[in-house]
Amino acid sequence: MNNRPIGVFDSGIGGLTVLKEVVEQLPGEDIVYFGDTARIPYGTRSKETVIKYFFQSVRFLMSKNIKLIVVACNTASALAMEEAQKVFDIPIIGVIEPGSKAAVATTKNSTIGVIGTEGTINSGTYQRKIRRMLPSAEIIGIACPLFVPIVEEGWENSDVAYITAQKYLLELKEHNIDSLVLGCTHYPALRYTINKVFENKVTLVNPAYETAKATKIMLKELNLLSDKLDGGKADFFVSDDPEKFKRIGGNILRKEIASVQKVNIENL
Amino acid sequence: MNNRPIGVFDSGIGGLTVLKEVVEQLPGEDIVYFGDTARIPYGTRSKETVIKYFFQSVRFLMSKNIKLIVVACNTASALAMEEAQKVFDIPIIGVIEPGSKAAVATTKNSTIGVIGTEGTINSGTYQRKIRRMLPSAEIIGIACPLFVPIVEEGWENSDVAYITAQKYLLELKEHNIDSLVLGCTHYPALRYTINKVFENKVTLVNPAYETAKATKIMLKELNLLSDKLDGGKADFFVSDDPEKFKRIGGNILRKEIASVQKVNIENL
Repeated sequence: MNNRPIGVFDSGIGGLTVLKEVVEQLPGEDIVYFGDTARIPYGTRSKETVIKYFFQSVRFLMSKNIKLIVVACNTASALAMEEAQKVFDIPIIGVIEPGSKAAVATTKNSTIGVIGTEGTINSGTYQRKIRRMLPSAEIIGIACPLFVPIVEEGWENSDVAYITAQKYLLELKEHNIDSLVLGCTHYPALRYTINKVFENKVTLVNPAYETAKATKIMLKELNLLSDKLDGGKADFFVSDDPEKFKRIGGNILRKEIASVQKVNIENL
Repeated sequence: MNNRPIGVFDSGIGGLTVLKEVVEQLPGEDIVYFGDTARIPYGTRSKETVIKYFFQSVRFLMSKNIKLIVVACNTASALAMEEAQKVFDIPIIGVIEPGSKAAVATTKNSTIGVIGTEGTINSGTYQRKIRRMLPSAEIIGIACPLFVPIVEEGWENSDVAYITAQKYLLELKEHNIDSLVLGCTHYPALRYTINKVFENKVTLVNPAYETAKATKIMLKELNLLSDKLDGGKADFFVSDDPEKFKRIGGNILRKEIASVQKVNIENL
């Protein structure tokens, strides 16, 4: 048993969808969330820079006496998690492994699509993980850089979203995928639009949900579960304006965020 | 006469459009360009963070013995330039003043639109400058957060661009503006699409062009012009991957960029 908090990292606010799933499946756990809002998005940055920013974030979370880190950000999971595991003495769990596992469990024709940021897709991390689990798989990865700003604009069910999704997903349709990994925290908001493009014929995999499940299993295996069954509390930290995070984050979590603190992340 | 270089700052690569105009109008001047590619975009960040990042960038440029700074980034011009002018002992020229002047010179019905990032529009800086020059003006500012990623995707003449522009610009059309400031370095790439929405009835103001003109005038007034009439050289610095900047930047400038150096901007 271990009542220290779980650390949840994201490049910004999107990781709250992962936090929400963790809270649902592990209601007794305390959580420390850090969103690197001053340097979001990670998806277009070089591997070197993502590693630097992620390491600073890990150092901050570790200063909060956490017992495990959940990496909600797909780009950081894809580009920097393995490096971090070599350097930091703490269990780190990312979204790629659980998301890949679910895609493999779901597909019937072994044809899987993965969508994400440029960084996530170009790294090939999802593709490699899936292939390791299902060597016969055909995997098509597509970077969809417009999806995040469309969601942030609140346009996820608009005609702009639909036409954009049609463009990005055309190749996946032509390959007749039957399982699609939503490899970026923002993408589940586009679920309705994406289903419309695929005429509901493709199973959408949400790594946020899968990662929360995997976190529970890992805590159990490492004997790190909290002895509380509910009443876990969450503390929020960001690197830019706390008020903006509070406002938008409250909408995502569907409850008010009482307090958000600003961290000077660059000097860690 | 003064043969020290001009510093050009941008949050990323878009400022090369300003550099291009400066080179055209001042071919004898040497230039040091810095693009803060590790922390782009500035347009969604808080004023406090934009000021911090801009000040670090100014410190870097000043270490290169420059004689004047041109702020190509509209967001930094809107949120941080006045603060910087109080702190740093160097002439600083931004895009807002020249862009506003051109809009006022252009309008016939005193109804002016301004489009830009959230930061630029919400700051009200363009609106205040224009009103000071033309107190009777009706000014409508609209933030267009999807325009930058659309241009970066190379989709500036696509149906996605057109439908998005129709949504953003509707209110400006209803107000019957006759002059529109393209208040973000990326937006001139959308010129064709924007003209289509307005059926060519609105004059588009490009602050990049106006700023280069204003720079020439300022250098003359301060007696800081180079004594060379051409053959000026440009040095490029960025805070993230130099190779990506070289590739995309070469396309913008339509000539090869020989060398780009990476700067560790966070510690300045």
